[in-house]
Amino acid sequence: MGTIFLYEIAGTAMLMLLGVGVVANVVLGKTKGNGGGWLLISFGWGLAVFAGVFVAFKTGAHLNPAVTFGILASGAEEYAPGIAVNFGNTIAYLAAEMIGAMIGAVLAWAVYKKHYDEEKEAGNILATFSTGPEIRSYGWNFLTEVIATFVLVFVILLFGGTPHGLGPLAVGLLVLVIGASLGGPTGYAINPARDLGPRIVHALLPIRNKGGSDWAYSWVPIAGPLVGGVIAGLASQAFV
Amino acid sequence: MGTIFLYEIAGTAMLMLLGVGVVANVVLGKTKGNGGGWLLISFGWGLAVFAGVFVAFKTGAHLNPAVTFGILASGAEEYAPGIAVNFGNTIAYLAAEMIGAMIGAVLAWAVYKKHYDEEKEAGNILATFSTGPEIRSYGWNFLTEVIATFVLVFVILLFGGTPHGLGPLAVGLLVLVIGASLGGPTGYAINPARDLGPRIVHALLPIRNKGGSDWAYSWVPIAGPLVGGVIAGLASQAFV
Amino acid sequence: MGTIFLYEIAGTAMLMLLGVGVVANVVLGKTKGNGGGWLLISFGWGLAVFAGVFVAFKTGAHLNPAVTFGILASGAEEYAPGIAVNFGNTIAYLAAEMIGAMIGAVLAWAVYKKHYDEEKEAGNILATFSTGPEIRSYGWNFLTEVIATFVLVFVILLFGGTPHGLGPLAVGLLVLVIGASLGGPTGYAINPARDLGPRIVHALLPIRNKGGSDWAYSWVPIAGPLVGGVIAGLASQAFV
Amino acid sequence: MGTIFLYEIAGTAMLMLLGVGVVANVVLGKTKGNGGGWLLISFGWGLAVFAGVFVAFKTGAHLNPAVTFGILASGAEEYAPGIAVNFGNTIAYLAAEMIGAMIGAVLAWAVYKKHYDEEKEAGNILATFSTGPEIRSYGWNFLTEVIATFVLVFVILLFGGTPHGLGPLAVGLLVLVIGASLGGPTGYAINPARDLGPRIVHALLPIRNKGGSDWAYSWVPIAGPLVGGVIAGLASQAFV
Repeated sequence: MGTIFLYEIAGTAMLMLLGVGVVANVVLGKTKGNGGGWLLISFGWGLAVFAGVFVAFKTGAHLNPAVTFGILASGAEEYAPGIAVNFGNTIAYLAAEMIGAMIGAVLAWAVYKKHYDEEKEAGNILATFSTGPEIRSYGWNFLTEVIATFVLVFVILLFGGTPHGLGPLAVGLLVLVIGASLGGPTGYAINPARDLGPRIVHALLPIRNKGGSDWAYSWVPIAGPLVGGVIAGLASQAFV
Repeated sequence: MGTIFLYEIAGTAMLMLLGVGVVANVVLGKTKGNGGGWLLISFGWGLAVFAGVFVAFKTGAHLNPAVTFGILASGAEEYAPGIAVNFGNTIAYLAAEMIGAMIGAVLAWAVYKKHYDEEKEAGNILATFSTGPEIRSYGWNFLTEVIATFVLVFVILLFGGTPHGLGPLAVGLLVLVIGASLGGPTGYAINPARDLGPRIVHALLPIRNKGGSDWAYSWVPIAGPLVGGVIAGLASQAFV
Repeated sequence: MGTIFLYEIAGTAMLMLLGVGVVANVVLGKTKGNGGGWLLISFGWGLAVFAGVFVAFKTGAHLNPAVTFGILASGAEEYAPGIAVNFGNTIAYLAAEMIGAMIGAVLAWAVYKKHYDEEKEAGNILATFSTGPEIRSYGWNFLTEVIATFVLVFVILLFGGTPHGLGPLAVGLLVLVIGASLGGPTGYAINPARDLGPRIVHALLPIRNKGGSDWAYSWVPIAGPLVGGVIAGLASQAFV
Repeated sequence: MGTIFLYEIAGTAMLMLLGVGVVANVVLGKTKGNGGGWLLISFGWGLAVFAGVFVAFKTGAHLNPAVTFGILASGAEEYAPGIAVNFGNTIAYLAAEMIGAMIGAVLAWAVYKKHYDEEKEAGNILATFSTGPEIRSYGWNFLTEVIATFVLVFVILLFGGTPHGLGPLAVGLLVLVIGASLGGPTGYAINPARDLGPRIVHALLPIRNKGGSDWAYSWVPIAGPLVGGVIAGLASQAFV
């Protein structure tokens, strides 16, 4: 359980440092990557996962409660080689993912501290931390997150059946294409910890021009990914 | 035959969900990826294939009638390990590819539902589902699709001769470069199911401002890819 | 020798179809990729090589006289497994590379035929076929091509010493970065056949608004790559 | 020690030729890649490392004093197979990295010579050689470099624990994402030799409109990466 904590906290922190970082680079003013576009963001998040998986490989690199619940729903007996699926380990993964996501967001904020200080738009500040819909419609936003997370978890659960030497790049490219293709409406949380952790950090950090943390929307990027992950886990039983 | 159906439907649906999705993200209004450019679209479709191949690996991941006919024309005895080339299996592949393409298009529409609702341009709506030429000229458009699909199927049939550990990424990158290099005139259908399936979905779905489904052009992205795939299959016999 | 012809013609034609194609997509009017930018071009050429190497793997996939001469200068005994370095084979490689480059350019022209017809700028038309300098200065342009080709051939000759499973992607990414980093002044011919073959095709094809083929510059992308390739071959002897 | 010199000089020169080159392509006037954006720069530097690692694989391809010090701090006994961690070898790595970085910068300058001649903005000229902050704040700039370099060295030190066949692409993609995600405030030196070497070259070369070399900032991209690398080395002991 200490192993789960160590690796999943570090891996999720790595993921979020690089993921929050790329949005800050594109969205905040006066950065080198300002206005760099959606492909830059998709690459940033995709390769953020890539880096995070190297860090947390030993514990299966869930980095995401939707993955943890997807594995649970798939009926697997282990979360990673040597780590049994049981209540205690499940809690350890979830807690580590949340703690890691918060640490990563704080680190990314530190990297871009001066740019946060000068940012005037509260919406831009929140956008670097958490996702939000372009057209608010809780039901359809929820469905978008369900489908996008289904893609993530379903393909991950099928990785083992196809020979390749890509290692962590496979999941990195999968996240890249989910962003490119399905990220348009909601910004693809596809991970409850990725959204809730930084949202809490946004609420707590003393950032000059920040506004509210949009708690009204916050259930969507939690519930959508969990439902999508569980459906993927169940569906994978017919394919593996 | 049930195996072919299960995997090829799921794989083609995955391909089309992510492929239609990336065009919707770039073309429809108010999305995060609006105006994201041709490289974003090329990456989206390339990695859509990458994800689809993981899903349908067990049945060879044709995902495309041009690939099925290309293998047929190559004189191979199996469509995938353990799946003989025969009439029944050929029909199963073709049917599954069409059904999967339609399911994927419906899912992508659901992901972008609110953006379809607000889209005013009928041309943009059709462009997310099916391909269309920038300069209409059936003969030259047909030739473009023949050549582009030849590249796809010919290189796929030669994959086995070159050692690499890329797995499904090889075909993903191949599709990426076909889009980047040969997609300029017609939007690179290179797959009859990819074009006809979503075109039918476009005709059936109740989308607010949609116009006609351009059936006059629809034979080009069916015939061109089939001809290109068959030529590639025949040509491959001199190389393998 | 027939094997060299078959594979190197096909591989170089594949390279040039996709390479000329991506420039046509970005430069010619009314294409889907019009104005797509330098990264799109760099990806197109990089993955064009990737595809070409799959086609010509059996004969070592030179696809480029600078590579052929680089291997010659390196003191290797074989151009590919089972193909000796000797005068006849050297001529076969060079001839096949030139023929393949011309075939590929003609195919790319066919793909974009209607867009060539409507193009008004003679400079854009030539740019899709052959390279040209942004600031004309034969000496410095020559040096740019020497250095860029040195990078290509030197790293290729060192590939064998580093374990990886990238297969043809390694050289594809190498060409991508050469374009991104060293292609700015001259458009990175780094391959005499890549430049001369299409230049001849440009001179011969009946394209409506084409101008001259800039023969005054044409020696630079021939001599520069050959010198760079030979230096790389000699330098590699100290490293392998 | 001669081996360290040969390979690390050549590898770091390759890295810097391609890295300085991509910035020159994007920043200097009249280049093909002018205004190509941050993703192009991120790809250029990422794949510059990829190419450099092929060149210097035999000596572990440090190419970076922060990596050398990170390995030292990790408690490893070898810098590369057969090369012991000791004082003489440490000095050899550091000297070779500096010499190689300077050679690479001179070569990149030669490639873009005519574009440097015509550049009017002194800031653009310096930006091709060395990094500089968008918002000057030595403390926060330092912290940004510490965190970004920590990511680089920490993940490199964990590469061995995760099976994959990416070879040098793994570190190339890692550098790509560090640029995309953490390069916004300071331009991600993450390598003292990468910054100091070209800064010295900038000071020495007779470039028409160059201004000062901003020595006031120069300690940040030296001290930040060294501190980040050492922390990564120490932290890795808990994970490997």
